[in-house]
Amino acid sequence: MLTPAELDRLRVVLVSTRNPLNIGAAARAMSNFGFAHLRVVNPYEAAFREARSAVGASAVLAKAQEYGSAAEAVADCSLVVGTTAVRHRHLHHPLRSLEDGARLIRRRLRSGARLRAKQKAPAAESRVALLFGSEKFGLANDDLSHCHWLMRIPTCEQNISMNLGQAVAVCLYELIRGVHLAPHQEKSAPATAAEVERITSMLLDALRESGFLDRRRVADSDQRIRRLVRRLQLPAQDAVIWLGIFRQIVWKLGRSDSPKC
Amino acid sequence: MLTPAELDRLRVVLVSTRNPLNIGAAARAMSNFGFAHLRVVNPYEAAFREARSAVGASAVLAKAQEYGSAAEAVADCSLVVGTTAVRHRHLHHPLRSLEDGARLIRRRLRSGARLRAKQKAPAAESRVALLFGSEKFGLANDDLSHCHWLMRIPTCEQNISMNLGQAVAVCLYELIRGVHLAPHQEKSAPATAAEVERITSMLLDALRESGFLDRRRVADSDQRIRRLVRRLQLPAQDAVIWLGIFRQIVWKLGRSDSPKC
Repeated sequence: MLTPAELDRLRVVLVSTRNPLNIGAAARAMSNFGFAHLRVVNPYEAAFREARSAVGASAVLAKAQEYGSAAEAVADCSLVVGTTAVRHRHLHHPLRSLEDGARLIRRRLRSGARLRAKQKAPAAESRVALLFGSEKFGLANDDLSHCHWLMRIPTCEQNISMNLGQAVAVCLYELIRGVHLAPHQEKSAPATAAEVERITSMLLDALRESGFLDRRRVADSDQRIRRLVRRLQLPAQDAVIWLGIFRQIVWKLGRSDSPKC
Repeated sequence: MLTPAELDRLRVVLVSTRNPLNIGAAARAMSNFGFAHLRVVNPYEAAFREARSAVGASAVLAKAQEYGSAAEAVADCSLVVGTTAVRHRHLHHPLRSLEDGARLIRRRLRSGARLRAKQKAPAAESRVALLFGSEKFGLANDDLSHCHWLMRIPTCEQNISMNLGQAVAVCLYELIRGVHLAPHQEKSAPATAAEVERITSMLLDALRESGFLDRRRVADSDQRIRRLVRRLQLPAQDAVIWLGIFRQIVWKLGRSDSPKC
């Protein structure tokens, strides 16, 4: 995971975005994943105004900064990465998978502390800009020319073009994804053999009382039921309640056998 | 990566979605990542109509199916996974990280071919439903009670609530992300949600008839029992016999209630 200081070094740059909803959606995803710095380049003026004034517009949106060109928006970053849906077109640039790209970006974001300690370098040396183009055309060649390399979300051939807000969400998620895998969730502890056997035995009583075993008389019915219960992989936490369920059923079945009147 | 046949086994289920743009966005992300089957449960009618008739509405949207309840929408799936933004609230269910959860879902989606070859199991046994709740409230407790476990996108404490379309995109991306893990050997084919629900419903009848539920009257007893049964991970091969067991018990309990003489 990235530290707050590392998260703080990313700049999300939206170039020529048309739809205010997409600017808002990008800001929301940034807020979800802990990124604070949004930059917009030549947005359709109305779109940016509308996004900023929307009800519930986030802090990210409130402090978003506007630039006249991609060059200005990335000027203080040491790594500039473009995003694209296209597989083969941009031969000018190295094209990386989202996973590989995110790994390199994380590495750069992390280099800050080390760099500053060693060389007293300014924060800019570990600042990364991540560029997203317009909904319709993506990044223009001029924008691309400021990028060190491009990153591609692995969409299907049949429909490579993602919604802008969703593309931002997916890229940021990949950046913050638990690189060292989260501790594996322990399956719940299984019931002990003794507990399982008590339950089996109570179930067998219920089956006898209910006439279930009469209907299908087989020599090894007890063993079959025993295997049936074991295939359930009963969790320990539930052993008591299952035992209670079958005990109550047996009690009720037994009571009803004695004539009532 | 998942094969087309594996991708085809996922059902994306949107429960009580309000905003047509979100239904459209979910469909778009599905199309981007190669998933085809969208199910909507109790959408705001106008929202679903509007989403479907939108310009450029995709093939995914055109063949989306509408259901009256989460139970019906997941009936033919053997693994039902809910998504949540919450970290600690739903203590009733195992909560997995998106990465761990996606790994388990992929494993189930992949189990199809192997299972069918071995046991002639129907496709349903490797079908997975992935549930997303409403924009405002997420999944309701009743929807959650049909889930085997929950999955959480790692959002920041400060803003955990994602836009629905972005949440769908991130989850589906994580599912298709290139991971080459050795396919884990599935033990035995699990029962479908419909089978599990039939068994649950028969068990509930038995609990009522036996007086078990009277002894511990709690508001959400049905949901508790539903979760109890899902924790068993019932194998498909045993579904019929468990149903038969509870049916026989219910029949016997019911008969004994009417006076005998």
